[in-house]
Amino acid sequence: MAVLRIGIAGLGTVGGGLLKLAFGRGPLAAAVRVTGVSARTKGRARDVDISAIAWFDDPVALAKSPEIDVFVELMGGSEGTARKAVEAALAAGKHVVTANKALLAEHGAALAKLAAQNGAEIRYEAAVAGGIPVIKALREGLAANHINAVSGVLNGTCNYILTEMDVSGRGFAAVLADAQRLGYAEADPTLDVSGADAGHKLAILSAIAIGGAPNFAAMRLEGIQAIEPIDLESAKFLGRRVKLLAKTSRQGDQVVQSVRPTLLAQDHPIARVNGPLNAVVIDADPVGRLSLVGAGAGAGPTASAVAGDLIDLSHEDSRPVFSGPGQSQTLQAAKGGLLASSKFYVRLRVPDRAGTIAKITDTLAKHLVSIESFLQKPPEDAARVPIVLTTQPMAEHDLLEALGELSRLDVLVEAPVLMPLED
Amino acid sequence: MAVLRIGIAGLGTVGGGLLKLAFGRGPLAAAVRVTGVSARTKGRARDVDISAIAWFDDPVALAKSPEIDVFVELMGGSEGTARKAVEAALAAGKHVVTANKALLAEHGAALAKLAAQNGAEIRYEAAVAGGIPVIKALREGLAANHINAVSGVLNGTCNYILTEMDVSGRGFAAVLADAQRLGYAEADPTLDVSGADAGHKLAILSAIAIGGAPNFAAMRLEGIQAIEPIDLESAKFLGRRVKLLAKTSRQGDQVVQSVRPTLLAQDHPIARVNGPLNAVVIDADPVGRLSLVGAGAGAGPTASAVAGDLIDLSHEDSRPVFSGPGQSQTLQAAKGGLLASSKFYVRLRVPDRAGTIAKITDTLAKHLVSIESFLQKPPEDAARVPIVLTTQPMAEHDLLEALGELSRLDVLVEAPVLMPLED
Repeated sequence: MAVLRIGIAGLGTVGGGLLKLAFGRGPLAAAVRVTGVSARTKGRARDVDISAIAWFDDPVALAKSPEIDVFVELMGGSEGTARKAVEAALAAGKHVVTANKALLAEHGAALAKLAAQNGAEIRYEAAVAGGIPVIKALREGLAANHINAVSGVLNGTCNYILTEMDVSGRGFAAVLADAQRLGYAEADPTLDVSGADAGHKLAILSAIAIGGAPNFAAMRLEGIQAIEPIDLESAKFLGRRVKLLAKTSRQGDQVVQSVRPTLLAQDHPIARVNGPLNAVVIDADPVGRLSLVGAGAGAGPTASAVAGDLIDLSHEDSRPVFSGPGQSQTLQAAKGGLLASSKFYVRLRVPDRAGTIAKITDTLAKHLVSIESFLQKPPEDAARVPIVLTTQPMAEHDLLEALGELSRLDVLVEAPVLMPLED
Repeated sequence: MAVLRIGIAGLGTVGGGLLKLAFGRGPLAAAVRVTGVSARTKGRARDVDISAIAWFDDPVALAKSPEIDVFVELMGGSEGTARKAVEAALAAGKHVVTANKALLAEHGAALAKLAAQNGAEIRYEAAVAGGIPVIKALREGLAANHINAVSGVLNGTCNYILTEMDVSGRGFAAVLADAQRLGYAEADPTLDVSGADAGHKLAILSAIAIGGAPNFAAMRLEGIQAIEPIDLESAKFLGRRVKLLAKTSRQGDQVVQSVRPTLLAQDHPIARVNGPLNAVVIDADPVGRLSLVGAGAGAGPTASAVAGDLIDLSHEDSRPVFSGPGQSQTLQAAKGGLLASSKFYVRLRVPDRAGTIAKITDTLAKHLVSIESFLQKPPEDAARVPIVLTTQPMAEHDLLEALGELSRLDVLVEAPVLMPLED
């Protein structure tokens, strides 16, 4: 594995998240060395001390620096400095890793050509759906498939607004204002609520999945500004949910790309993806329908995607068979697999006999089993009355001791059934 | 890209699916040439003519053949021929692609060592969760993450049985018998319903995500045989669902692996994954929670995963920037993005005036708009009465013409809101 020298342009939240990984104790720190950075403000306080790293006022100069192998572009914007710097890096034969969806959606074809001419690669997992590795899934995991359609919720701001409108019954403008206060929407929300941001991401997905180069200009865009609470309510009445759906699909010999509010069936894998999450659904032969859900934005998820691309680039040779995020860990296997702390579900069957319930609750209390809920169903058979209870968080070992005592007390007519609860 | 010579041992449903892809017109056909096959019965009728391919009665001889670069093992079983053949291939320095979860869960450490000694690779995307590219997501996409837990529904048979018990209220034995009749369960269902099959898959996920080599022996296994309808019903009453959850997680300096029925919160990403589907949820830093859902078994999904591994092995050099399943397609971008056929949601606002509804329905009928549902809400404001309707499947163009005429008739007090429906 080659250690890559990387230059990072843009040290906002994502760049900051990436620096933390690069200077941490995980696999990114082993794969890269940061040899240059560039950002708007040099003096700003940061989580990671960058004083020993070469500073570039001009990102284009960083992109061309002989001290870097890979240029990491985290500035954003389809024109201006970001475009110039990426072009300069590729022209110098350097690989580019970028989170810039607008740049690729609008100039992807030209940049791909420039990369090919100079033997360079462009990696862009972070440009689509943040932390969800959908680019890799489509390009590599599903490489043998014929993709019929890719659809998704690709803009967390719109999904947050629609979810809030649905839950609260309030209108678009009021919820948008709240989202702005909470940092889920920008001061100028146009790029998000108009569908353009989702369209940029869809153009990239469409190129990979259906064919051609990204073609943002051919996309049909419709935002969520016209949606009212009555639409969300009517959709529910129809057994459906409204989502801003980005979708690319084949229609005869054409590809149809659109971003538009859509009524999804309640059991559609995206219908219950709420809040600022992203989701992608792939319909393909022979794999069938595949759906991926996760965080679509934010420092952590985006840095995870950028770092994944960088680690990939560092693996010119192959990886050991079970290599993975756990490869550096040496953990002991726990004995017996008992949970140290969990809520539990317990089903008991007891005879319908005076004092039985008291015996059970006394024994559980003695073992400090704290009961969260207790259901006793009307018995179909007085010799076998079902009792279901759930506990507060506790050690499984302690619960087993309590149930062991119940068994010895001869109040149970069958062995208890025990299941943990998961949230 | 090197064309790989592959030998396939095992021509059941998955092997047959793989042959179809290898002799089709897609990317697998470009990446590999099948130079040898081995199966139990030579004469059996198959979808693909294999008479021109070298036949091996002995899979071990195929594994060692100088005419293959990659040995594809689709026989199954942790011991016997499958194990011997994989060992022979690795000893001869040949890469192995396998769907054999039992083999890797029980002998993964020894096989990984043998592979490393001989400069060979083992790829096994098909061994876990069928068509879901979760091995790739964990090893590559999330390579920079610290994985806290991986949980999943990894056995479609158990998930089908639990779903059917839940829906029908019938008991385990009756639903299992049906599942066997329908081909969702084997004649001897022990490996599935005991949790062992899910455990094999979890052992592999645990090694990659949390660390170490697969350790099936350390796993806690509990099947679904003890679950009764009352448990599914009680779970619902508690706002939860019962799933056979396979989970590996860190607990202090230990790794806890278990397969056991678990009550999931209703909004847990796996809670609504029903029928024979598989699902995996990854909790990691910094990416957060990621979930993947898809077909966990079957010829198509499993062949998709095997083929993805083979295409990966053929890409020793890098891939073009927008390469992907769509790379060989030349499709035109559709103009305007209008849907050729879809159901639609339409929201109109009209004045509360006699004859308005009739005018609307007449105009829609004239344009052959077939109405599926029609909701008229009690008006809050008589000058602006909302009407919501959904259509049968139709061309968007025709619907737009109908709505255009409505606008010209002066019966609408605002522009219509139009959304497609998706299932």
